[in-house]
Amino acid sequence: MKLAVYGYGNLGRGVECAVKQNADAELVAVFTRRAPETVKTLTGVPVYSADRVLEFKDKIDILIICGGSATDLPVMTPALAENFNVIDSFDTHAKIPSHFDNVDNAADKSGHIALISAGWDPGMFSLNRLYASSILPEGKDYTFWGKGVSQGHSDAVRRIEGVVDARQYTVPVESALEAVRSGSCPDLTTRQKHLRECYVVAEEGADLARIENEIKTMPNYFADYDTTVTFISADEMKEKHSGLPHGGFVIRSGKTGLNKEHSQTIEYSLKLDSNPEFTASAIVAFARALNRMAIRGITGCKTVFDIAPGDMSPLTPEAMRKMML
Amino acid sequence: MKLAVYGYGNLGRGVECAVKQNADAELVAVFTRRAPETVKTLTGVPVYSADRVLEFKDKIDILIICGGSATDLPVMTPALAENFNVIDSFDTHAKIPSHFDNVDNAADKSGHIALISAGWDPGMFSLNRLYASSILPEGKDYTFWGKGVSQGHSDAVRRIEGVVDARQYTVPVESALEAVRSGSCPDLTTRQKHLRECYVVAEEGADLARIENEIKTMPNYFADYDTTVTFISADEMKEKHSGLPHGGFVIRSGKTGLNKEHSQTIEYSLKLDSNPEFTASAIVAFARALNRMAIRGITGCKTVFDIAPGDMSPLTPEAMRKMML
Repeated sequence: MKLAVYGYGNLGRGVECAVKQNADAELVAVFTRRAPETVKTLTGVPVYSADRVLEFKDKIDILIICGGSATDLPVMTPALAENFNVIDSFDTHAKIPSHFDNVDNAADKSGHIALISAGWDPGMFSLNRLYASSILPEGKDYTFWGKGVSQGHSDAVRRIEGVVDARQYTVPVESALEAVRSGSCPDLTTRQKHLRECYVVAEEGADLARIENEIKTMPNYFADYDTTVTFISADEMKEKHSGLPHGGFVIRSGKTGLNKEHSQTIEYSLKLDSNPEFTASAIVAFARALNRMAIRGITGCKTVFDIAPGDMSPLTPEAMRKMML
Repeated sequence: MKLAVYGYGNLGRGVECAVKQNADAELVAVFTRRAPETVKTLTGVPVYSADRVLEFKDKIDILIICGGSATDLPVMTPALAENFNVIDSFDTHAKIPSHFDNVDNAADKSGHIALISAGWDPGMFSLNRLYASSILPEGKDYTFWGKGVSQGHSDAVRRIEGVVDARQYTVPVESALEAVRSGSCPDLTTRQKHLRECYVVAEEGADLARIENEIKTMPNYFADYDTTVTFISADEMKEKHSGLPHGGFVIRSGKTGLNKEHSQTIEYSLKLDSNPEFTASAIVAFARALNRMAIRGITGCKTVFDIAPGDMSPLTPEAMRKMML
């Protein structure tokens, strides 16, 4: 399958690396809104201006849109679905229904197929919430994130006066995880589920107490959490905090039996050295499925819930049944 | 959907309990090879002789076949697929390809749909092996089982002279789990992955040393494992070992990045108080999907790899996208 990437940041680079690991996939183009001559791909994939994407209308099986969920994807995905089969990783959970409708309209009219919100959350975590709740209807599920870097929270800290650089880790609370795993279906507040750890490089002479206080009391981002703030040097930031690790847990526990006498617990977890590379790897597997569905003539907007898992594998159905079932 | 159970043992009872938790499902009949008047269902579902199953040809959406994999299912599933949409939990991994072919022939000819090998392994574990290997092509996956009761191994111990009763637990080795989780992709022998714990009630005056030795050296079952044997009283057996807990882990770790510099680990685990009830709960969710596929006119034999996860949920696609994605 011929893939292309629209938007070349961490996720786009991740797709480029993931394609190398899949013999049936080829990355034929990278599209950028920057001046193409200023963008160098990791593996020599040609770079084109985003304006020229329509020239590739019949040369790409699936276009992977690597834009931001806040302002890019709500516009880009419906627009590009008019001419391409597309995948995005739209992750503003509350706005998924309207994004779906917009993309579905565009893809349906143009006879293309689109997959929105592919990745791990939304994506593999969503699948696990769905499978687990379908199997254990009487139960409760919990999603924990981390330990991992939250780009949005890191940015929020960087905007504080006197902050030169910042990295924020979301950390699941171990005792909350254990309570959930025990099958006791606890009610947990925001504060009980996650901690927030901030590593901050401050300007020389900055008022550290003020910065710490501004972080800890920031509404929406930190006020509802137990937050730690650690001031470090720029060197230490670079050395210890330049990666983008992430991960998390989806746990559902439920009851079965005539009198609900048995506890059953399903847990799915990810431990990722690189969040964007894992997201990209998942997207490439979903792209394989989407391409197969497109070949079958299926159109419109889909989600990971619509994708038969077997379509994601490079193996034949026979090999899958023999080796994986 | 109208379900029926063919074979009323632990799994059949589990299905009966699971149906109670799903408002869109109804268990209309239990078929047994025993004298029907000797079988009492947990919730008053009517019991019929297996000989009468054809009388229900158009009264059942999905027939769930709860027989043994060794001799029952290879015969029952293809035969019943001539007249019903069927699900089984065939779990002899090596014989899945030929079982698939037999069931596919029968279902295809009769215009029915069949799902074989549904449950958790094969079933949810298979799905997780498939998803994880599709996302991380360069990696290795590991399946661990337990801690849980192995019926086959318990039976093997019971056949030894002087043994009155026995329960065998398969136990994953914690250090092996940790090595796998670390991302080091270790090569593990059978012995390094699982321990076998046996609890044995011996006849009065039996030669305990001989029994222990016969267990530990039994080919295929125990000789390749570190096995512990603990002699207990019949009372203790009843009190502490009458449940059927099980569970396990599917872990895949793989590398991503231009130079494979990042480790990524995916882990799926189950901790089950009741193995048959969980298997049954999964089967009922798969039955919902199969029924929807049948309504769409899909025929032939399927596996869990062919089932779009959204079809397993009682929620509408809109609700799923809003609440689960």
